[in-house]
Amino acid sequence: MHEKEMTETLLDRVRETVLSQGFMQHVGARIDEIARGRLVLSLDRREALLQQHGFFHGGVVAFLIDNTSTAVAGTMVREPGQGCLTAEYKINFLSPAAGDRLICEAEVLKPGRKLTVAESKVWSVNTEEDSRKLCAVGLSTIAILEAA
Amino acid sequence: MHEKEMTETLLDRVRETVLSQGFMQHVGARIDEIARGRLVLSLDRREALLQQHGFFHGGVVAFLIDNTSTAVAGTMVREPGQGCLTAEYKINFLSPAAGDRLICEAEVLKPGRKLTVAESKVWSVNTEEDSRKLCAVGLSTIAILEAA
Amino acid sequence: MHEKEMTETLLDRVRETVLSQGFMQHVGARIDEIARGRLVLSLDRREALLQQHGFFHGGVVAFLIDNTSTAVAGTMVREPGQGCLTAEYKINFLSPAAGDRLICEAEVLKPGRKLTVAESKVWSVNTEEDSRKLCAVGLSTIAILEAA
Amino acid sequence: MHEKEMTETLLDRVRETVLSQGFMQHVGARIDEIARGRLVLSLDRREALLQQHGFFHGGVVAFLIDNTSTAVAGTMVREPGQGCLTAEYKINFLSPAAGDRLICEAEVLKPGRKLTVAESKVWSVNTEEDSRKLCAVGLSTIAILEAA
Repeated sequence: MHEKEMTETLLDRVRETVLSQGFMQHVGARIDEIARGRLVLSLDRREALLQQHGFFHGGVVAFLIDNTSTAVAGTMVREPGQGCLTAEYKINFLSPAAGDRLICEAEVLKPGRKLTVAESKVWSVNTEEDSRKLCAVGLSTIAILEAA
Repeated sequence: MHEKEMTETLLDRVRETVLSQGFMQHVGARIDEIARGRLVLSLDRREALLQQHGFFHGGVVAFLIDNTSTAVAGTMVREPGQGCLTAEYKINFLSPAAGDRLICEAEVLKPGRKLTVAESKVWSVNTEEDSRKLCAVGLSTIAILEAA
Repeated sequence: MHEKEMTETLLDRVRETVLSQGFMQHVGARIDEIARGRLVLSLDRREALLQQHGFFHGGVVAFLIDNTSTAVAGTMVREPGQGCLTAEYKINFLSPAAGDRLICEAEVLKPGRKLTVAESKVWSVNTEEDSRKLCAVGLSTIAILEAA
Repeated sequence: MHEKEMTETLLDRVRETVLSQGFMQHVGARIDEIARGRLVLSLDRREALLQQHGFFHGGVVAFLIDNTSTAVAGTMVREPGQGCLTAEYKINFLSPAAGDRLICEAEVLKPGRKLTVAESKVWSVNTEEDSRKLCAVGLSTIAILEAA
């Protein structure tokens, strides 16, 4: 029971934090899924998010990796008051972000007292064909801050 | 003379490509400087680009690194028709992107026939104090495509 | 049949290349498994491979990631004559490389005509307890060279 | 005076730690230079350190980046008792490590209370021609541990 409440509190906080970001709204991203150690964000294609070839801009893909990795780390901190800060990440672009929607799934590889490591996968979705393709992967290090 | 023209053609193309991106306009970025092997982008602070603590969002910083690294690689290709595609990069966040303006300076560390390696530094600028602080560094690998 | 032969030729070449490296022998590594898109290397603990706390040195862990990623890319090239060169990788250390043996499993995330992306996981093995722990992950970009 | 002593103590500790590593001796590396925020390691070419084309093995290059980045972070900790642990790094290979000697120069980009970011450059040296070439760059995140 106690642990369940703790988890709920953590997830609520992460949800709130993510949704309060101006940039999150600016790109039109939403939380599709949130659980301990796992988080999914997605956003829809629109002109403002594209690069010159009509694909999603790399900056949009990076935003998804950055945001999911910080947030997913937040789902596994020990105390609800602790903050998470992405210290660094690497992103590999595997195929053009060509679909009409991007989904980013993040998982914690190793939760830590001070540093957490997470992996994010970005899929481009073709809704009509009901298919998806892996278009980027990210490997992130997140600093866990003391509770304020 | 011939080389000078070639360089001008290359720089014109890079400028054009960068400015044609919807996302570039969406975040309000501009080209401050462009030369063979060096490129500078900047953008101003506004609500839509921030995260929950009032700093520039990591996705904005990443966008700058992504975009400058692809573009700076384009300033050193052998033939004007060749395209550049960022294959991957790593970004380290050094301090909060707190100022009223971000400047991203990119340099080519190693131009290559197939792969170019570039480094980008993002500075947060405090205009009033006329000071700037290094807030992120990026190390990128860019694939050079055959001329179409 | 033809494809099976092709695969065998590829795997033989990779095996041969890996085993011909002076450094491979210097650290005492061996190939545990090799297949299309998957490769496993391992090595045993000995004094010469350790750092000051008695764990495997980070350079040994990096060697495993470097070597498996190049080699696993080689198992998926289109022509047997093509070479592979690791262009870059990122490595995250998750826990001390403390066991009596290290195993590194590599997989191709995305094979490409010019660039292949691979992921490597390094496990530290405690033989007596018959347990293993994830101690590092790597994300690598490998350049595929033209057949000589 | 006090700060000078503190610096000397720090540098002595780093020197001692680095030289006590079995792997450091196994590859035959030495400290060429050590100062606050800067450290240089080098090693000489010999058969045991090479890959199949006669260049220094990527694992050797990675070892240099790994070791210099941890050690250079150690030159800037606040208290002599604090340890340094490389959390992660990215390495880009720019040209074959072909010379008869490798030199690795590391610098602290940002010292931190909990995380330090360092950059390492590996040069391959041709002693006869008295020339050197940049063959790899690394960007590292180092965790700073509490004093024991």
